[in-house]
Amino acid sequence: MKLMFISPITDENFEEKSRQESLKYVSTGTEIEVRRVPYGTASIEGAMDEALAQPGIIKVGMDAQTEGFDGIFVSCMGDPGVNALREAVDIPVVGPCRTTMLYCADIAARFSVLTVTDGVIPIIETIAHELGVAGKLASCKAINIPVLELVDLDRTVNALFKLAIEAIEKYDAEVLMLGCTGMIGVDISLRNQLLNAGYDIPVLYPVPISIRYLETLVKNKLSQSRMTYVKPLDKDRSIFNMLNR
Amino acid sequence: MKLMFISPITDENFEEKSRQESLKYVSTGTEIEVRRVPYGTASIEGAMDEALAQPGIIKVGMDAQTEGFDGIFVSCMGDPGVNALREAVDIPVVGPCRTTMLYCADIAARFSVLTVTDGVIPIIETIAHELGVAGKLASCKAINIPVLELVDLDRTVNALFKLAIEAIEKYDAEVLMLGCTGMIGVDISLRNQLLNAGYDIPVLYPVPISIRYLETLVKNKLSQSRMTYVKPLDKDRSIFNMLNR
Amino acid sequence: MKLMFISPITDENFEEKSRQESLKYVSTGTEIEVRRVPYGTASIEGAMDEALAQPGIIKVGMDAQTEGFDGIFVSCMGDPGVNALREAVDIPVVGPCRTTMLYCADIAARFSVLTVTDGVIPIIETIAHELGVAGKLASCKAINIPVLELVDLDRTVNALFKLAIEAIEKYDAEVLMLGCTGMIGVDISLRNQLLNAGYDIPVLYPVPISIRYLETLVKNKLSQSRMTYVKPLDKDRSIFNMLNR
Amino acid sequence: MKLMFISPITDENFEEKSRQESLKYVSTGTEIEVRRVPYGTASIEGAMDEALAQPGIIKVGMDAQTEGFDGIFVSCMGDPGVNALREAVDIPVVGPCRTTMLYCADIAARFSVLTVTDGVIPIIETIAHELGVAGKLASCKAINIPVLELVDLDRTVNALFKLAIEAIEKYDAEVLMLGCTGMIGVDISLRNQLLNAGYDIPVLYPVPISIRYLETLVKNKLSQSRMTYVKPLDKDRSIFNMLNR
Amino acid sequence: MKLMFISPITDENFEEKSRQESLKYVSTGTEIEVRRVPYGTASIEGAMDEALAQPGIIKVGMDAQTEGFDGIFVSCMGDPGVNALREAVDIPVVGPCRTTMLYCADIAARFSVLTVTDGVIPIIETIAHELGVAGKLASCKAINIPVLELVDLDRTVNALFKLAIEAIEKYDAEVLMLGCTGMIGVDISLRNQLLNAGYDIPVLYPVPISIRYLETLVKNKLSQSRMTYVKPLDKDRSIFNMLNR
Amino acid sequence: MKLMFISPITDENFEEKSRQESLKYVSTGTEIEVRRVPYGTASIEGAMDEALAQPGIIKVGMDAQTEGFDGIFVSCMGDPGVNALREAVDIPVVGPCRTTMLYCADIAARFSVLTVTDGVIPIIETIAHELGVAGKLASCKAINIPVLELVDLDRTVNALFKLAIEAIEKYDAEVLMLGCTGMIGVDISLRNQLLNAGYDIPVLYPVPISIRYLETLVKNKLSQSRMTYVKPLDKDRSIFNMLNR
Repeated sequence: MKLMFISPITDENFEEKSRQESLKYVSTGTEIEVRRVPYGTASIEGAMDEALAQPGIIKVGMDAQTEGFDGIFVSCMGDPGVNALREAVDIPVVGPCRTTMLYCADIAARFSVLTVTDGVIPIIETIAHELGVAGKLASCKAINIPVLELVDLDRTVNALFKLAIEAIEKYDAEVLMLGCTGMIGVDISLRNQLLNAGYDIPVLYPVPISIRYLETLVKNKLSQSRMTYVKPLDKDRSIFNMLNR
Repeated sequence: MKLMFISPITDENFEEKSRQESLKYVSTGTEIEVRRVPYGTASIEGAMDEALAQPGIIKVGMDAQTEGFDGIFVSCMGDPGVNALREAVDIPVVGPCRTTMLYCADIAARFSVLTVTDGVIPIIETIAHELGVAGKLASCKAINIPVLELVDLDRTVNALFKLAIEAIEKYDAEVLMLGCTGMIGVDISLRNQLLNAGYDIPVLYPVPISIRYLETLVKNKLSQSRMTYVKPLDKDRSIFNMLNR
Repeated sequence: MKLMFISPITDENFEEKSRQESLKYVSTGTEIEVRRVPYGTASIEGAMDEALAQPGIIKVGMDAQTEGFDGIFVSCMGDPGVNALREAVDIPVVGPCRTTMLYCADIAARFSVLTVTDGVIPIIETIAHELGVAGKLASCKAINIPVLELVDLDRTVNALFKLAIEAIEKYDAEVLMLGCTGMIGVDISLRNQLLNAGYDIPVLYPVPISIRYLETLVKNKLSQSRMTYVKPLDKDRSIFNMLNR
Repeated sequence: MKLMFISPITDENFEEKSRQESLKYVSTGTEIEVRRVPYGTASIEGAMDEALAQPGIIKVGMDAQTEGFDGIFVSCMGDPGVNALREAVDIPVVGPCRTTMLYCADIAARFSVLTVTDGVIPIIETIAHELGVAGKLASCKAINIPVLELVDLDRTVNALFKLAIEAIEKYDAEVLMLGCTGMIGVDISLRNQLLNAGYDIPVLYPVPISIRYLETLVKNKLSQSRMTYVKPLDKDRSIFNMLNR
Repeated sequence: MKLMFISPITDENFEEKSRQESLKYVSTGTEIEVRRVPYGTASIEGAMDEALAQPGIIKVGMDAQTEGFDGIFVSCMGDPGVNALREAVDIPVVGPCRTTMLYCADIAARFSVLTVTDGVIPIIETIAHELGVAGKLASCKAINIPVLELVDLDRTVNALFKLAIEAIEKYDAEVLMLGCTGMIGVDISLRNQLLNAGYDIPVLYPVPISIRYLETLVKNKLSQSRMTYVKPLDKDRSIFNMLNR
Repeated sequence: MKLMFISPITDENFEEKSRQESLKYVSTGTEIEVRRVPYGTASIEGAMDEALAQPGIIKVGMDAQTEGFDGIFVSCMGDPGVNALREAVDIPVVGPCRTTMLYCADIAARFSVLTVTDGVIPIIETIAHELGVAGKLASCKAINIPVLELVDLDRTVNALFKLAIEAIEKYDAEVLMLGCTGMIGVDISLRNQLLNAGYDIPVLYPVPISIRYLETLVKNKLSQSRMTYVKPLDKDRSIFNMLNR
């Protein structure tokens, strides 16, 4: 099995870190390739960034199918381009936001999302509605640290801890999901800090579980339904000519 | 008051027809300018088309604010780029799908959307969820005539009539909305055909009522909430360099 | 176009103030007449008041159609008599509560209603359910100042400000709507006070936007659906004989 | 225990029949008095009729409390005046629509309402929303026989049978409730006809179970919550002067 | 009428107290027998306890039908065995949680449940969803006093009072229901303490109203729908051989 | 990793077939052991069977944790004992119904469940509510072939095909899930029959994807939240003494 891991922002560090991390997440026998979008935005922190990232994500995803990949993962919590790619290709396409919400819906009564900036919140809330689990979304709040500053792990974990306490005490969350794929390596420390504070609550980092979920789809020859994600009609799409010239 | 009417597809006929029609929809004293996206797709019939249309819509919308326009209307029933533009600009931005759904929710117990192609259905359903009126959406079904073929009015009205009957009899719709801004000039004939068939049911063509709605926002100095649609952070957005070079 | 503005309480000051204000809200060419109910209650602050106001509202509304008016607006946030009138007449009938909720649902993720007294709250919540947007209603709370005391603008704005802060901080509101048509001339000051407190949140005063909304229906020859609001059967309705003797 | 049974229409036959029937529904030791409204409409078949019936219902209900009654039942499936009376008096007030919906919600997965005329449908649907059980309402449809013609039992049962089959086969109802208190003496025959057709489905006639429900509230010293149904403020309510002169 | 009151735990004190109390709850002419399960758990405080209590509840319930009882009440707020028994017998089976939720849904806009231990919370929340009234459940929280320690009435009422204040002030509850059938004799004192604190809010103790509700079903020859609760097929059920040897 | 596959019925054939099949579903390096309940029922086709199966499931599950297993799968579509075991053990416990519903919610707009007998339907519908995805459940219907007769594959597939067509055409399903773990080896033929009939719709057989899902939880050291599934208190649970003597 050969999976495409799309790094949907033009930042090179994120691509490189994703490359190192992704290898840890796959099963024996699965190959995974990380590929950065050729055009887009430096980071994704709202609907405008998402809109600008999507042409690049579609380009990489369509190439992936042509090159024989078996499944596609788009590494951003707004799931940008996932619906578009699900139309464009036949292989399964997975986004971390919707996938992780499903795990949360299963293992607890209510979940909260801890994300980066306020601009991302309505995107994540809409995904909860689209997916059908909005009734279990206790809250979605932001630490308001931009994506590219998450590398300061101490600051990030401290801010997440405060938000987690609010999610539990004000909003009755019973499981937490990290709301940015850039929040690498903080789930364990956050979980432990919460345990010390008296809260035995799971903290889900979306990337590894989403990739396993994608592997399961591929392994079982499943893909998104063609009745929901209809094959695009042939037509002139001039923007691609301009971007790929 | 000066409104920008964005024609979000690269097809020139739609731009021209919109130019003629839009003049009829505004109040005395309102100026309206129709402007076509500089890049995108020939028509919008699914999530991929929408994704590819958005950069152009954002470009035109941001220019509109810079040029002193007072409000923006995006003429496509998937409301492409509306959320992105609501972040990018301070003036009100209106999409026909969400606006018309609100009229429907007010004047009847349940509404159905009659749209062009199956690819548009999940987009419209998600807007209903995002807007919060999904509980009143009786059904959303397609005539499966591509946007650029809607000009054959007889074929279009006949197909819409069949779908309308299904919406009423199978799904209990009590008001109908046309699900494509390209369905120009068919609402009256459809309503009359239905009256002849014994159904006194309103049929809403989204464009004129959405533009009046936009006028109301402007007139009352209202705009989308900045607490929902957060101002985008400064960052590198390379795709614009490539598109606008 | 000639609109009927029904002042649904027997208080004369409200009628007079509505007369002055309503002129500012209509488009060029629209005539608007304010008419007070001939019988009812001094103000409307609960379900009992509403029930007692309705016969008068129905009377005025039916007269309006007979006299050739093109649309009817009932100026009370419980939308009293709106459903009854929608059955009784063919011209469009609009209530400020449901109309304003729709604007709120469009321009933000969640809205709160700031109303006069606790007795009004379940009425407004039920309208949210009937309209289908209850999922976006963050909260509906009262300042507990009776309608006829709202004229003390300072006291009113201060009480609204406190409630607004609670709506934002406790209930996550992202847009606010004033929950009494008697709250005239406070929306701007409330919005500014909130801005000073760090919250950039729209505040909607229902009357002007509802009247524009009604104008749009009339202009586009739209009315409530006859499939939802069925024409009343002929029968003896003795109460009218007693009231109008 | 002394209960007031309000006959909310001015028709005398309905009052008389209710008087005979109501005696069968109460427990040993319960007194029940049927009292007709002094003004209103000949029957209730929509929102306008309801609005016109409410002043009379409020009058009778307030008198009941003054005269020492322990509880009030309003015998109409639109529950007219119930919310108003719940504010006006301290003793419990019960409506058959909401009460019977609760029984239905308990004993089956989904229920359908079979009512008289189309005008009643949105009223019943709104009660389902207000009550919180709209998710279990499979359908609400009308036989379109006016209230005062229900006395033709054969015609009524036949029409109900057809509607019941539709409720079961098209809408997946698993329990049925009769949607008019005037449908006296048809529940058993309808249930048997359905059994013969192969459907073992309960049919609920609302009046007896609602009166028992009211007895239970009285017996347990329970009433509607004052936090929801707030005591009306003192004020001029001129309509009562006109009606009761 | 002869009702079976199932005491679903093996504790003898609860059986004895139920025997004394139950006599107060029935109408003249109703006989009620309290019977303890022959096997199970000492108390029920979570899903595991519930699972282990169910075989005994089913045994007692099936015996009740054989012995000619007319209805069955299972005295535990998780309604354990209610769905199973509704399949197994033809006579009506009632659980206090779902029944009391219905009363709450009727008499107020939002209700809160005050229960014993955290383990019961998801069970009660799921019943609210199954019943269809989850939208009116403001909160369900626990005093975290185990069932068998509730006999310390002062401690119990104090803990309930604190939780009630939270339900009202944090969650906007407008009626309260006690979430354990073992909370005998505390509803009045809790209601009075709340009145003294300024909150006029009904407090429902589930047992008496549920038994009256069961009487109503029996009296009106109603039972759970066979379309929802299907008669079990014949098959080997070896566990009964082992338990009843 | 060592997984326990609980065969929750006393039928030996199902255990044996599960043993053969389960080996195909796990990743390299995962051991899986199938163990049959020591007491229960021959098959599970309703709430009563489920209740009687649970003590055995709890017994096997608790033993599994003691013996050092890393995760537990309960192979029945009613997910019997899953909530109880999630309290009783610390290792993750997975049920096929809720897990498969999550896959369905992700890959399509609406899903239908095709199950064995009518008795199972309310159980599956309640799981959809508990899980939070009921809004995406288009329908749940039964072929009414008892579990132990599913081995007649032709009859089973034909019945499923009819039900699938109904799910698609009447209920607008866009993905199908098989509603019984005993429906082994029919998903591919059903999918192909549907393709031939013009419907390109995924068909999910729950067992393999649920086991992969369990592997993912174990691999990522995740388990059900202790805030939702509270550890049972110590107490006398006499039923176990009787069953295990």
